[in-house]
Amino acid sequence: MMAQPDQDRSQPADSAGRIVISVDAMGGDAGPAAVVAGMAKSALKNPDLDFILHGPEAQLRRLVERRRGLSGRVRFRNAEGVVHMDDKPSLVLRNGESTSMWSALESVRSGEAASAVSCGNTGALMALSMIRLRKLPGVNRPAIAVLYPALAPRKFNILLDVGADVRAEAHDLLQYALMGASYARNGLGIERPRVGLLNVGTEQHKGRAALREAQELIPQFTESAGFDYVGFVEGSDFTGDVADVIVTDGFTGNIAIKTGEGTARLIATLLREAFRYSTLSRLASFLAITSLRRLQKRIDPRRVNGGVFLGLNGTVVKSHGSADATGVSAAIKLAFQLAKSGFTDRLAARVASAAEVPAETAPRPGTGDQ
Amino acid sequence: MMAQPDQDRSQPADSAGRIVISVDAMGGDAGPAAVVAGMAKSALKNPDLDFILHGPEAQLRRLVERRRGLSGRVRFRNAEGVVHMDDKPSLVLRNGESTSMWSALESVRSGEAASAVSCGNTGALMALSMIRLRKLPGVNRPAIAVLYPALAPRKFNILLDVGADVRAEAHDLLQYALMGASYARNGLGIERPRVGLLNVGTEQHKGRAALREAQELIPQFTESAGFDYVGFVEGSDFTGDVADVIVTDGFTGNIAIKTGEGTARLIATLLREAFRYSTLSRLASFLAITSLRRLQKRIDPRRVNGGVFLGLNGTVVKSHGSADATGVSAAIKLAFQLAKSGFTDRLAARVASAAEVPAETAPRPGTGDQ
Repeated sequence: MMAQPDQDRSQPADSAGRIVISVDAMGGDAGPAAVVAGMAKSALKNPDLDFILHGPEAQLRRLVERRRGLSGRVRFRNAEGVVHMDDKPSLVLRNGESTSMWSALESVRSGEAASAVSCGNTGALMALSMIRLRKLPGVNRPAIAVLYPALAPRKFNILLDVGADVRAEAHDLLQYALMGASYARNGLGIERPRVGLLNVGTEQHKGRAALREAQELIPQFTESAGFDYVGFVEGSDFTGDVADVIVTDGFTGNIAIKTGEGTARLIATLLREAFRYSTLSRLASFLAITSLRRLQKRIDPRRVNGGVFLGLNGTVVKSHGSADATGVSAAIKLAFQLAKSGFTDRLAARVASAAEVPAETAPRPGTGDQ
Repeated sequence: MMAQPDQDRSQPADSAGRIVISVDAMGGDAGPAAVVAGMAKSALKNPDLDFILHGPEAQLRRLVERRRGLSGRVRFRNAEGVVHMDDKPSLVLRNGESTSMWSALESVRSGEAASAVSCGNTGALMALSMIRLRKLPGVNRPAIAVLYPALAPRKFNILLDVGADVRAEAHDLLQYALMGASYARNGLGIERPRVGLLNVGTEQHKGRAALREAQELIPQFTESAGFDYVGFVEGSDFTGDVADVIVTDGFTGNIAIKTGEGTARLIATLLREAFRYSTLSRLASFLAITSLRRLQKRIDPRRVNGGVFLGLNGTVVKSHGSADATGVSAAIKLAFQLAKSGFTDRLAARVASAAEVPAETAPRPGTGDQ
């Protein structure tokens, strides 16, 4: 198979090349005020950025009017319904048409916006995205990709899937490798990404059957898709410089990022306790405050936890449910960057190029490993 | 089913109630000198503790003779073979009879030692333990349990399985719950442990089929086995105070602990960089050094990563492969505590009490989820 150049198509934009992002104002823990504050932060930094904002219009207009930087840059779509964090995705699919989440995706579906941002219920957002935007041709299971802080030169690695689907066959893992490599190239500018497959050890004979199959399958596509395959990697490699993209099923990936978050929070708490311990250590923390803030910024989940849904006709960025203005702004920045790069179309081309996998290596969904 | 009191049987011991621990001197990254140094540390703290030491006797005698605290407390078993970190478990099973690892387990099997400690290849140690010590009656899949640093009053939670078996059916997860609760009670003195089941969310409908089955099964045994079941927990709960024991399959558990280790190492590195950043921050680190050392001690994997093999006829403690004297000493301390409590027999009684699970809830191994 020959290497195909990534396609370059124009993205939905206003006149004069402005990028439009569709924003779900509701469903996050911090409420619509934090979302609008995040939009205002992003609008200041990116003059080419406009918004369509979804939610209860009267309330949202009041919030937006208070932010001078948003003046003339926000269109409103009234939606009174809200998807709550504990709503079952299947119910939202049946009854969610009046919600701000549904409406936010509709702007991407219609082509009015280049991508959508939501802080809401991940399961419902993924389910709605699958139904309303539909999967890209050739994609079996879409995936959620996040950035994990790392000691690598680029300061983080890409990890996927972190929870779109609890299952993944070998063929799905191959698609995650292709989608992750495309994200790394178009979103982060890594020309030839290194892709690793998460396992319990780096030896060939380790792990589950689907992993050993994927270990055979993925190297067949490194040339055509322009990435390097580094083989099995371990949980400790998320934070290392072994792979730019780490591929796993959504169950394992979700547990892993939550373990990482919990561990980081534990250390932050213990560090605060340590600095409170004595007069000397309190003085030390005062002297070190700038350095500690720099550290905190580097590993702050609000800055890195904008998950991107990969494998759909349209880009959807899921911000952390508890995101404040900083978190929302980071998610909008990511949506903006991806829209600018024409990411969805480039990804579609990549996946299509691998749709020629022979049938015997592509088991039907729902069989084998769960 | 009625609650059965834990049995109280005597453990293998020398005359005068001394506890004998069987130690594999070889196979760790730091070599036999670190193992003997760790034994010396433990011997100082526990006057009731004696050793049987396995490996190349001439070399080991020289190392032991240099440690005055070990005088008269070590018996030697010559074994010239070494199990290496990358040896395939199946090969060790066939050809490993001359190794120090095999010999170390033999002392437990024969009843000369109460428990065994090894820093060697985890897969080989588990495979050998299963074959030589055999599984407890009623146990389908033994498990490896570790302590995870947490903000709980007891400063850590128990996590299992972290890598004995990459698969686990609902019935295996029930056994992990019973074994983990018994370990928490006898090893850590938690009278009525809270047990949680690791999932990607706490809602009833989430996760894989085996988890939803286990969610039905485990509550049926809380009364007879004397623990509380708190339901689904998430990766962020490892470090929290929601459950004392967190149950998962060995694939997910292994990825999780390695993710935690990697994240902790990342933060430690960034923290060192932060303190090196300016003259002021270098001064701060000098003032805070005691507090930082206290923090490091609390989350040091060498101190908490002594994994315990549960579900076998005999207690085996797997120390971290890169354990130094401190790590080996922590593993020996754990082996000593468990031996003193008569842990293996108490655990056997617990598992036996649950062997009456109706057949339809106990699928055959090797079917369903992988």
